[in-house]
Formats: sequence, C-alpha cells, structure tokens
Amino acid sequence: MRTWQTPLSLDRADPAPLAVQIARALTARIRAGALRPGAPLPSSRALARTLGVHRNTVLAAYGELAAEGWIASDPARATLVSRDLPPPAPGAAGAPGPAARAGFDLPPAPSDATWETLPPGTLELLGGTPDPRLVPVAALGSAYRRALRRREHLAYGDAAGHPRLRAALARMLGEARGLAVPPEAILVTRGAQMALALAGRALLSPGDGVAVEALGYRPAWESLRLAGLRTVPVPVDARGLQVERLEALAAAGAIRAVYLTPHHQYPTTVTLAPARRLALLELARRARLLVLEDDYDAEFHYEGRPVPPLASADGAGVVVYVGTLSKVLAPGLRIGWLAGPRDAIARLTAHRRFLDRQGDLAVEAAVAELFEEGEAQRHAWRTRRVYAGRREALAAGLRAHLAGALSFRTPAGGMAFWCRVAPGLDPEAWAARALRAGVAVQPGRLFAHDRRPRPFLRLGFGRLDERELAEAVRRLAAALPRGAQRAGASGA
Amino acid sequence: MRTWQTPLSLDRADPAPLAVQIARALTARIRAGALRPGAPLPSSRALARTLGVHRNTVLAAYGELAAEGWIASDPARATLVSRDLPPPAPGAAGAPGPAARAGFDLPPAPSDATWETLPPGTLELLGGTPDPRLVPVAALGSAYRRALRRREHLAYGDAAGHPRLRAALARMLGEARGLAVPPEAILVTRGAQMALALAGRALLSPGDGVAVEALGYRPAWESLRLAGLRTVPVPVDARGLQVERLEALAAAGAIRAVYLTPHHQYPTTVTLAPARRLALLELARRARLLVLEDDYDAEFHYEGRPVPPLASADGAGVVVYVGTLSKVLAPGLRIGWLAGPRDAIARLTAHRRFLDRQGDLAVEAAVAELFEEGEAQRHAWRTRRVYAGRREALAAGLRAHLAGALSFRTPAGGMAFWCRVAPGLDPEAWAARALRAGVAVQPGRLFAHDRRPRPFLRLGFGRLDERELAEAVRRLAAALPRGAQRAGASGA
Repeated sequence: MRTWQTPLSLDRADPAPLAVQIARALTARIRAGALRPGAPLPSSRALARTLGVHRNTVLAAYGELAAEGWIASDPARATLVSRDLPPPAPGAAGAPGPAARAGFDLPPAPSDATWETLPPGTLELLGGTPDPRLVPVAALGSAYRRALRRREHLAYGDAAGHPRLRAALARMLGEARGLAVPPEAILVTRGAQMALALAGRALLSPGDGVAVEALGYRPAWESLRLAGLRTVPVPVDARGLQVERLEALAAAGAIRAVYLTPHHQYPTTVTLAPARRLALLELARRARLLVLEDDYDAEFHYEGRPVPPLASADGAGVVVYVGTLSKVLAPGLRIGWLAGPRDAIARLTAHRRFLDRQGDLAVEAAVAELFEEGEAQRHAWRTRRVYAGRREALAAGLRAHLAGALSFRTPAGGMAFWCRVAPGLDPEAWAARALRAGVAVQPGRLFAHDRRPRPFLRLGFGRLDERELAEAVRRLAAALPRGAQRAGASGA
Repeated sequence: MRTWQTPLSLDRADPAPLAVQIARALTARIRAGALRPGAPLPSSRALARTLGVHRNTVLAAYGELAAEGWIASDPARATLVSRDLPPPAPGAAGAPGPAARAGFDLPPAPSDATWETLPPGTLELLGGTPDPRLVPVAALGSAYRRALRRREHLAYGDAAGHPRLRAALARMLGEARGLAVPPEAILVTRGAQMALALAGRALLSPGDGVAVEALGYRPAWESLRLAGLRTVPVPVDARGLQVERLEALAAAGAIRAVYLTPHHQYPTTVTLAPARRLALLELARRARLLVLEDDYDAEFHYEGRPVPPLASADGAGVVVYVGTLSKVLAPGLRIGWLAGPRDAIARLTAHRRFLDRQGDLAVEAAVAELFEEGEAQRHAWRTRRVYAGRREALAAGLRAHLAGALSFRTPAGGMAFWCRVAPGLDPEAWAARALRAGVAVQPGRLFAHDRRPRPFLRLGFGRLDERELAEAVRRLAAALPRGAQRAGASGA
C-alpha cells in the first residue's frame, strides 16, 4: 500500500461531494500512471479511516469507479485498478492543459492569416469600416429583447434565415437597388464573408478557376482559395474590371466564375462601365459562368443615383448577388445575404446547414423589426448624410495638406478614397511612418493580387468624425519624409 | 422618335426624384433592348414637354446617364444611346426576378440535405434537442442590451471569440469537466457544427480518412465530407467505439483522425470504456492521429460523476475538444467551441476568419455575463433536475405502455433513450405511423453510416414536459400495429 503514503487530497471547501473528490483523485492517479493496472487499492474501511470520512463515502466512490471500469475486484474480493487499462502514455502524466504543439501534422496555413491589432489611440483611416458610434443600439437592444420573447428564436430554425428578415431584405433590395427578388431567393448569411465562403464551396468545384479583380478584396480571394479554387487576376482600370479580358479565359476553360465589386470597385472606388456590364452578362450567359457580384457598399452613394446591380439585369440566371448590413448597420451583427437563381440558393442553403446550421434567429428577427419599423431606413439616410460630410472633410483636408503628395478623385460612393501617391514617395514607408505617428492607412500593395507595391494609399473615412479626420490628415502629413513634403507642395 | 410613343411612366407618388425616375426608366429600356445602341433620344426640351416636367429635370437625368456611359452626344449634339453598349442578351428583357434555374452548372449536392419540417402539433420525441421554454430569456435579453452599450461589440473584433466568454468557458471546463484549459487555447465557434466544419478544413487535408462511429452523428460526417475527407465507419458496442479496430486502419494509412462522442455516445448513449479511452490516446500519440472529441451533452449526466473528457488526459496534443452551449442554454444562440493544442487553435482561428470573420460579439459578451454572474450555472443545475425528471417520466411511460415493443437501458446522461425494437416490428414503418399519429421519433437507420435499417428507435425527452411525454408515449403506442402491440404486451 505504499501508493497511499501520499494522502489523497480532500478539500472540505470544495463544493463537490467527498465521494466525487475521492473518485476524481483516484482516476487522476490512474491516468498519471501513479496507479498502474492491477495495483491494489486499500479496503474501503482502511481508506475511510485514513481520510477521516464515513465508509459509505468511500463505498460510493468505489462503486462509481467500478461501474465506469476504472477499478475491479479480484477473486479474493480485494479492490484493484482494472487490468483492462493499458499503461499510460509517456508524457501523459500531469499535463497542466493542452499542449502547445499538436501531436498530429497540420496542413498548410491560409496564406493571409495576419490581422493586425493597432496600438491604442491610433486613428483608423482604414477602408470600408463604418463607425460603430452611429449604430442605433437602443432600438436594436429593445428589438432583440422582444425577439427573445418568442422562444422559437432560441431553437433550431430555418437555415436560410428568419423569414421576416428575408422579406425585409427583399423589400429593401427592390426599393434601394432595383433588384426584384422574392424572399425565397435569399439566403441570410453571417456577413458577406460567409456568403463568399459558401458560394466557393457550394457553387463551384475544387480546381475551378475564378477571375478576380487584380486590385481587389483579399479576404474574398482567400475564402475562394480555401475552397480549393484558383483565383485568376484580371486588370482593373478607370472603368472597372477589364471584362474584355475574360473572353479568352472563358474560352480556354481557365475560369468558371468571376468575382467582382462592380458598384464602387474595391479598392479603387470606380464604377463598372455600362458597356462592360452588359458584355459581362452576355459572356456569362454564353459561357455559363457564375458571376459573383459583391455589392458591399450599395447603401452609400453620394452623387446622383446609385448604379443598379448586375443582378437586376440578369435574365439568364448567371448572377449570384452578395450583400451585407455590415456597412449600413454594423459589422458585428454579421448579417449578409446571397440572392440568385432558386436552385443555386437551395444548394447554398444545403451547404450552410453543415457549416454552422443556421444564423442567430433572434438577432435576425430584431434586425427585421428595425426594417419593418423604418428604423433601418432612417438610419441609412442619417448615416449617409454623416458619411457624405466626412467624405467632404477628408477631401478638403487632403487638398489643403497633402495636395502635392496625393492625388485623387473624390469617390461617388463608399467610405474610402483611392489616392495616387506622388512619384518618389514610397507608400509603404509612408504608411509605416504614419502608423508610428498614430494613423493607420493601407498602401496599395495590400490589395494587389501579385502582392507587388502600387503607388496608392486607400484612406477610409467611415470610422472617424470630422475632427478626428482633420487630426488623421495632420498626422499623415507629419509622417511624410521632409523632402517629399516640400516636393509635394511644389508639385501640386 | 417612335420609341417615345410609349410614354415613360413617371409616378408623382414615388418618393424618388423625377430625374431619378426618368434615368431609371431609360436604363430599363436600354437593358431590355427597347432602346438599342445608337438609338436617338428626344431633346431635353422635347422630353420635358412630353413628360410635363421642367427641362432641368431632364437635363439632370441626361447628365447622370452620360456620366455613367449609358448615353452620349453625337457630333451634331444630338443625344443617343451609347454605341459602346453591346446588344442585350436574348431573354434578358423584363426578367421579373432571379431565374429559377442557374445559368451555370451546379456541382453535386451534399448527400444529406433534407431537414424535415414537422406538421404543427407534432410532439417531438427527438434526440438531443433541449426545451427552449427553459431558457432564461429575461436575463439574456438584459445582458445583451448591456453588451450593446459597449459599441466595440458591433465592430470587427477578435475572431477567436469574445475574451470574456473564452475566460468563462475556460473556468467552466475546469470546474465541470476537469479540463484545465487556458482561454487562449479556446476558439468560440457558431455551435458544434461550425467547430466540426472548421476542424475538417483547417486540421486535415482533402482526401484524408477520418474514422467515425458506425452509428453516429450524420451532420458531423457530412461536414467532414464537404471538407473533402473520407469517413471510415468503425463499429460501436456497449463500451462505445471499438477502438481496437483503429490500429490496423492507422497502420494502413487509411485514417488521419478519429471523430467520436465518448461521453454519452450519439446515438446509443453508452460511455466509452476506460480501457478504450487510454488505448485511443496511446494509439493517437503513436500514430499522430487527430482525435476530434465531441463532448456535446457534457452538462447532462444524472447518475454519479460525469466521466472526464479524453482531452483532460491528453499529454500528447492529439485531442481537439468540441463543446457547445446548445444543450445547456439554447441551440439558437449558436455558441460552441474548440479547445486543444495552441498551434491547432491558431490554425483554426486563421481559417475561421475566412469563413465568417468572427462570431456575434454582443451575444458572446451577453452569454459571458450569464456565466460570470452564475446565472448559466444555476440554469444548468435547474435544467438538469428538470431533464432528470423527464428521463424518469419517459422511462416509466415506456415501461408501462411499450414494455413488449421496446427494450432499453435508462441512459446515465444526455436527453435521449436508445431503444431496441422487438423482433418482428419494423422501426421505420412504426416511425411513419407515429408521425401520422402526431409524434416524431427517429428510427435507427437515420444514424447508420451504411444507411441500413437498425432495430432501434431514438427517443428524445428534452423538448417535452412530463404531461407531453405521457401523451407522446400514448401516441407512439397507438401507432403500433395491433398484432405487434398484443405480442409486446405478452412478451414484456
């Protein structure tokens, strides 16, 4: 009985019953190899005496351990550690938690898995992110509470999304985007990111090629790649994606799909030209290409009428439309959607069930209520005014302080400027200096499919108010190398 | 100008400005092919007269259309539809919404995409689903409102989950499951389903084999298959998965991982025997297998002490642990998690960013608050008592009314009984009759990897209170074929 010289530790303050503590301590020893298969255990009477507990307490612990197969009785009715147990693995003893390293081989990592954390106090002049300070949280919180009263929102439900939200989105798409789509042709997703991940998996097959904008949205490409697809870059110019380049790719079987952001191209902010829009739809119809249309900032267009999405002119069932509420409400709500041909939406929904089963129905119902009561629409109007003001403020600030260093066209929509950096200025060195000066900006290389430098900075104005924007521009100017700043001032 | 004989329709009640309506109507006609490239348009003066609007309104519309490239001026300064536009595709005209059929080729569908909708009034004697009527919705709603006050919960945030929730889960796992895991080794997912989908994609490679329980959880298999993996069935007996069968599979390179439910095996409810637990860990260590441990109903164990998870004895970094709050709180919250070796969790988090970016931080923070204030724990205790009562009620009901038709061992935990159907009774015919009688039960075939019939029914007691359970048993008995019922009564 030498094993018992180290007493079992029982803790009277531990809320677990003493029998449970005894059983737990014994299995810990067995697992750690301190008690080997076949090792004798003290009699219940002896152990009870040692521990100062009632014998029934030990009998309860032994009974449970026997039922679970940890311990057994030998023919002489002595109690011993079950001989069925294999010896413990070396190194298994006393592990204080999960290992730092996996004991199996990990496949290659996603190629773009770094998402930086910014130092506190950094002003985020970053593309496309809205201001969470503008979200109508009181209305949202109340709507969520009301949604919880219907307890079916906490159960398993429709994987395609809450029917009320699908109906609200269908109405919104008709009114705001000229897209006539019935609720049944909409799948609510967890943001545009899940929409893209699903489309890559459910509508295409591993090995398929997808044409993408050579300057574009890297997280979308990475989702497509993780689905086993190949991304094929196609140049972008002042009229958007060079659609004419797709013909040969399609004819050669190099692509089965096109992913693009035609409304305000990401990151350049240009709108796809009408001739290209029609040419793309016609090519897709003939070549049976999937057109994955990402209409991510549809709600923010400041000049004239927003251009209708490709999906609104698709009679051939080639467009699958991706939208999100991340910009108009909040990214943290994780509400996006896919709209398109019914059979494609059904296929996407089938895949979604095996990805995360369904969305958060209570949040979906709460957001539907914001739409039904007009709160979401009013919020979109209010914030459009706010963002229009911020756009003007940033344009004015850049003109006043960085005219020689940056040139730009004020974008017709969206939440960011795509600025050309003057010759001789290294956008990446500038961005690095700017970060040290307390302002985060994105150099062109981040958006390039070939990861090569581009003489551009993308400056987002969504998250900062006008005072903060002025300060951000000041810091950006202060981060300019001195010579460059002078050169800029004269070259404007 | 014959094109203009059909007047453009302007609607004074439409809130859109008249210039927008004009522009919209013209692009609709261009898209529909009613106005071809090069077709002349009326002068602004003429159109203004026809429509009864101010000429400036038409000029605004034309200006915008010209800026977008839809229309152009010829050398004689007449306005015409841009010659750059290709002719519209046949069939593109006047499509009232997305097509029913995709104009591209869909890849094969998931093989198990049917999720039935039950007729209203059906009593759900279904496995594993908890009762949403028990969820503490008032506490949850209040916590959510408080979480929204911190607006960073509505922005982009930590893809691994809210730090407060990760800390709360780490404490819970230590206290309730004996699993010492730091918050950094936990990734919060959207339910166990996303945890499995992620593990299949981030920790394994397409073509890899995964051993699964031959009677098991089909949605998990389907997630693994959609990740390109092969599922290899291994028999289950009264001691759980037959671990000894894995050795040869691993040696032959047929498997790189094992997915299993060792606590209360799904669907048979048996607990994996201690000898097999240790043998599995040792084999995994030697063969570098990933052990994907699904501890899905850990919270509900009614007899004695719950068996600790495999992960708590893993010193080799081979176990990745999957848990969920679907049973203890609510499936609709979609909160699950993965815990395991740090490098594996980092890899999973990197993949998750491209799947749906992050969870719903406000919901995660609200649930964390329920844990911090002890509400979640109190709720778990309360509901454990409720479910224990329901388990007794179902056992008593089955003994009283179906003793000859069904035999079972009352499960030590979980929310379902695995009942053997008496010889001569067809479980599927019975289940079909039962559904018509207003009670839904699951026949064994639904859980079989080979999809062949098994003489079992799985009866879940989670969603029904004791009165409803009595009625469900009555309906199930009423659905027995008469001869079988008599045979049952005498054979008990």
